[in-house]
Amino acid sequence: MTTHPAAVVDAPPVGTTMRALVKERAQPGAQIREVPVPEPGPNELLIRVEAASVCGTDVHIERWDPWAQENFGPPPMIFGHEMAGTVVGRGPGATRVAIGEMVAVETHVVDWTCYQCRTGRAHVCQNMRILGVHRPGSFAQYVAIPEVNAWVVEGTAPEIAALQEPLGNAVHAAFVEEVAGQTALVTGCGPIGLMSIGVLKMAGARAVYATDINEERLELARQMGADLALDARDDIIGQLRSETDGNGVDIVLEMSGSAAALHQGLAAITNGGRVSLLGTHTVPATLDLSQEIIFKGVRIYGITGRRLWDTWYRTTALLEEGLDITPIISHRLPLADYAQAFDLVASGHAGKIVLLPQAQ
Amino acid sequence: MTTHPAAVVDAPPVGTTMRALVKERAQPGAQIREVPVPEPGPNELLIRVEAASVCGTDVHIERWDPWAQENFGPPPMIFGHEMAGTVVGRGPGATRVAIGEMVAVETHVVDWTCYQCRTGRAHVCQNMRILGVHRPGSFAQYVAIPEVNAWVVEGTAPEIAALQEPLGNAVHAAFVEEVAGQTALVTGCGPIGLMSIGVLKMAGARAVYATDINEERLELARQMGADLALDARDDIIGQLRSETDGNGVDIVLEMSGSAAALHQGLAAITNGGRVSLLGTHTVPATLDLSQEIIFKGVRIYGITGRRLWDTWYRTTALLEEGLDITPIISHRLPLADYAQAFDLVASGHAGKIVLLPQAQ
Amino acid sequence: MTTHPAAVVDAPPVGTTMRALVKERAQPGAQIREVPVPEPGPNELLIRVEAASVCGTDVHIERWDPWAQENFGPPPMIFGHEMAGTVVGRGPGATRVAIGEMVAVETHVVDWTCYQCRTGRAHVCQNMRILGVHRPGSFAQYVAIPEVNAWVVEGTAPEIAALQEPLGNAVHAAFVEEVAGQTALVTGCGPIGLMSIGVLKMAGARAVYATDINEERLELARQMGADLALDARDDIIGQLRSETDGNGVDIVLEMSGSAAALHQGLAAITNGGRVSLLGTHTVPATLDLSQEIIFKGVRIYGITGRRLWDTWYRTTALLEEGLDITPIISHRLPLADYAQAFDLVASGHAGKIVLLPQAQ
Amino acid sequence: MTTHPAAVVDAPPVGTTMRALVKERAQPGAQIREVPVPEPGPNELLIRVEAASVCGTDVHIERWDPWAQENFGPPPMIFGHEMAGTVVGRGPGATRVAIGEMVAVETHVVDWTCYQCRTGRAHVCQNMRILGVHRPGSFAQYVAIPEVNAWVVEGTAPEIAALQEPLGNAVHAAFVEEVAGQTALVTGCGPIGLMSIGVLKMAGARAVYATDINEERLELARQMGADLALDARDDIIGQLRSETDGNGVDIVLEMSGSAAALHQGLAAITNGGRVSLLGTHTVPATLDLSQEIIFKGVRIYGITGRRLWDTWYRTTALLEEGLDITPIISHRLPLADYAQAFDLVASGHAGKIVLLPQAQ
Repeated sequence: MTTHPAAVVDAPPVGTTMRALVKERAQPGAQIREVPVPEPGPNELLIRVEAASVCGTDVHIERWDPWAQENFGPPPMIFGHEMAGTVVGRGPGATRVAIGEMVAVETHVVDWTCYQCRTGRAHVCQNMRILGVHRPGSFAQYVAIPEVNAWVVEGTAPEIAALQEPLGNAVHAAFVEEVAGQTALVTGCGPIGLMSIGVLKMAGARAVYATDINEERLELARQMGADLALDARDDIIGQLRSETDGNGVDIVLEMSGSAAALHQGLAAITNGGRVSLLGTHTVPATLDLSQEIIFKGVRIYGITGRRLWDTWYRTTALLEEGLDITPIISHRLPLADYAQAFDLVASGHAGKIVLLPQAQ
Repeated sequence: MTTHPAAVVDAPPVGTTMRALVKERAQPGAQIREVPVPEPGPNELLIRVEAASVCGTDVHIERWDPWAQENFGPPPMIFGHEMAGTVVGRGPGATRVAIGEMVAVETHVVDWTCYQCRTGRAHVCQNMRILGVHRPGSFAQYVAIPEVNAWVVEGTAPEIAALQEPLGNAVHAAFVEEVAGQTALVTGCGPIGLMSIGVLKMAGARAVYATDINEERLELARQMGADLALDARDDIIGQLRSETDGNGVDIVLEMSGSAAALHQGLAAITNGGRVSLLGTHTVPATLDLSQEIIFKGVRIYGITGRRLWDTWYRTTALLEEGLDITPIISHRLPLADYAQAFDLVASGHAGKIVLLPQAQ
Repeated sequence: MTTHPAAVVDAPPVGTTMRALVKERAQPGAQIREVPVPEPGPNELLIRVEAASVCGTDVHIERWDPWAQENFGPPPMIFGHEMAGTVVGRGPGATRVAIGEMVAVETHVVDWTCYQCRTGRAHVCQNMRILGVHRPGSFAQYVAIPEVNAWVVEGTAPEIAALQEPLGNAVHAAFVEEVAGQTALVTGCGPIGLMSIGVLKMAGARAVYATDINEERLELARQMGADLALDARDDIIGQLRSETDGNGVDIVLEMSGSAAALHQGLAAITNGGRVSLLGTHTVPATLDLSQEIIFKGVRIYGITGRRLWDTWYRTTALLEEGLDITPIISHRLPLADYAQAFDLVASGHAGKIVLLPQAQ
Repeated sequence: MTTHPAAVVDAPPVGTTMRALVKERAQPGAQIREVPVPEPGPNELLIRVEAASVCGTDVHIERWDPWAQENFGPPPMIFGHEMAGTVVGRGPGATRVAIGEMVAVETHVVDWTCYQCRTGRAHVCQNMRILGVHRPGSFAQYVAIPEVNAWVVEGTAPEIAALQEPLGNAVHAAFVEEVAGQTALVTGCGPIGLMSIGVLKMAGARAVYATDINEERLELARQMGADLALDARDDIIGQLRSETDGNGVDIVLEMSGSAAALHQGLAAITNGGRVSLLGTHTVPATLDLSQEIIFKGVRIYGITGRRLWDTWYRTTALLEEGLDITPIISHRLPLADYAQAFDLVASGHAGKIVLLPQAQ
């Protein structure tokens, strides 16, 4: 493999250290530490992280909840995964992406050899490893990623490029079936729910309705183009029926992780409609399968990750067409302010927060 | 409409009476009564019932369980819906089906004008009425049905023609996506589950696994072609993984109405697989949506009725190709033996029971 | 059927006559004649025609070209089919649509009983009859149509409602597969091609390219939102490759009926892309099937009519969302000026022309 | 990459030579030569060829027709591509497939980085290279292939494993849409057409009709399970209509490369049916697009190669279920008899011919 020497340009000299947010121990908390800059392995890229947005998962890891205890690590390890950055180094075999290019990152590292990966479903790889969960992540000045996971972007601001990963979740959920000319209900106006509103509108949805129990988020839903943004605690079923000629909505995107929201969605959906389940349900949900799903002839899609790479192409296309997700970004903070960022996310009083690892 | 006089040939003279099984009062039980032969209304056919098979629904009605209390009637009314018979009369406007033809019957009477009916989803019509539930049924010597609900059969024994309705359920559930070359698990070996085994095998499934907790039914599953028929109380997940190169099954058809069976199906399914839910769940099911559906990228289809008329065409084709469902018929009884029939169905020690209204 | 008396309100008294454009003889030409107002038959509506737009088919009939000789009539018969109007009478059995409602009209009268009609493909009914081709049409003050063919519209101008029929062609062609985030080429900027540009843009196409050899139409294409409108006689393949990162376009809508345009589309399409063929090809086309279709893995959809009624629902939704097709209407003329209208259409110097049968 | 040393077991010692069929010059003919055994490069396997079947393409290359002149080489180069063999060596980086395993081979070497490869359509890669056409092929005792192109088989005879490549063509063509319960016409009973008959029958086709003008092949069609095998020169349209209740066939697989066959297929197909085009059309075909495709609402799929790797999984499954393609193998010959093999293929008096490079 001497024909593929690691071309490293502008990369920090070997032995350089960097700032990183490290989950040091199997307990709540995290610390900024000075650690060695990683070296890109075979078929890997070294990326200088320009923007790293905060996902709910990161808060779970910082708070060390049961999910984190079961899935993360092992500590000590850098976490964070939604990111964009500049390619500054290439490990042996990495030749597709050039030094100096800006890339967004697919955070799911798949094996490309399992049944799923070999049948167009790599997003549900049997041996999935996730950046910042199972391998060192992006809350750092540099990170090494598999070259195949890099998505080259051009003319996109780093903070938007970082958000292509959760935006891809929204696109995946929205586009499992056709959207144009259909009515849709988005239950849950967290960042991905908000993004999905913009996606649905741009794809020609006839009307997009959104629910949440947080008025700030409902206001953001309106900014993203929701035709109606409703408090989920109100009796919204009658209103949605009335808005849809009595038929109910064609599409439900469940983005809240709340069983109550799912019940509302299944009550609001038209017979033969389709539901995308994306919000993480941390407690089991009790469903009347016969009345809510079977007799209505409803289709339910479990949605995780992004289709590789269909979703990325389409996400990029929507941004090129003018999809504007900046209203969702509520804060831009230096990495050092991570604690404030996590508190804001946990409080529900934030949209998306972008951490800037290169900022002092 | 005088251009469409009711052509009535071989029909019983006006005023004739017939034997019928009537749900007389809103309480358990049913009675054989002599009642007037119905008159076919506009666009209706009068059918002499040659075979009327017993569905679980009929037992619910006879036993007068909560579902029946909420949905049936009002009494007094004849029940029964799975049927085949000979056209003996036509109401005004009925011209497609000729007197003397043998027909199977679609039991869902839809309005043809709602959103669903006008977009290829009449099987989930918003104003569905069901033969033998909302209008007089087939446990009788004669029944009137809308002409559009008649499916002409040729060269098919009446008992098989009667079973095209539940067989259509199996076909609908199996064929929501492709089958050939895929592995499938059928959870629940009641009549429709058993039929679906034959359907899957005929459509080129790579392997069909079946589960139940009733050894008689498992034996029938083997007769219908199941590659493996397993007691659901055993630890079957490992075995199914092993049978499928570690991948799990591609397809799950949930035919039992049991939450435990659904959990097994979702544990056995491969990431990105698909589930058809058809068995009626009479109690709510509690699901870990994240682990069982979302992170696995599973698709769930609520299945009810038969697609009009795609399912009927394909069901007919499978019978023509040689699909043999006679092993599922365990009893053929005169209508007068209805009580024995219902007891047998309730006991679980029967396959499909066919009642013969013309037999003495 | 005496329970469904013909309710006729505001209808012209029996025996009244009306103005109509009649194809009187099997030869070129047509005449305005005073003829009896039709009487709605069973399950039919009588419509007062408010707007009747001119289709290329109408010119074929007027000019009496070989297609018309083979398909039309027999003369004498009123022609015209794209239309909207007010319900003024109902024949026996017609109860769904109320007197006074404004309706657009599906011009394909299908039998609802053939294999295609019974499997969700009524738009390719084996026994199709077309308004204004096989039965009296809409270039008249009144027309009788099957009630099932009436599509109730609310708050839509009659001239737009009349155009829902060709707009539905565009929607059908565009929506056979997903559009959002894809690039598309429309070959041929006649009225349906122009409409499809608006449809694709509203459905989130990444970019829409259009070709024609008529500069006036290319200008309309730009008005309808085309990202690029190109003279098809130029070497456009390189330009389209360049616009699409070298990949070629995902979607081709062939709206011209020209073999040259189809060759360009197949040269411009990306491997694995899809083509909708809608433009009527009056002469055979010679294709290199291996190079143009097979080795590229292209899918070709023959498109005719509108899916019943999926296309109508989606077309209505797009209009509600704000799709504006008025730029395509170049002339509004009284019915008496039909000859001018046909000449304009034949000249290629018109967009869509709407005839107004109620105007003097 | 020193962590992935080339593990070479049982491989011929470095410098060993082998017998191979070489296209030496850009002119008709080919020669058996003693040439060096290839060395597997990075991520490549060295395979001992156990069976190499003859494809029509090989005859084109040997005869040096215009297609070969444009696509092959450059000479001198070994040709042949349909093959199975034993892994005897692994180049650096090749770790998935073990030494000693038997593999079938995907002959299309794709780049895995183009738009098509990254969106689940690698079979239409923009930079496709084909074994035995663009790089040294399988008519040799050994061949080096990319490891990713190896499909491990177990318990399959080498001659059947070699045929999984053309069988995959048949599976790809048949399975672009559902098959079960549908009627199908296969036009052209060369090896892939014959295979497709078996595939369709196993997948539950209601009936499979086959046409050819070679009675030997029609007899093989019957052996493969065709319900009717008809001489294409007869007037078969009426017969096929009659066999299908007047509707025409649902599916056409065009396997002949003959325009006449395609016209017959389009005449025989039901409105709204689907056609897979796979047979290579060496001369342009002239089609009445309006009558044959558009007004019938037909879908046409250009089919090339095999979906990676969906088609391979399903092909393997069908073989496991018992699909028997041995009747199609008419000759098994040592590699030295290549000239006889090519003459037999060119004559049309052969089914599939398997060359055995290890035989003396």
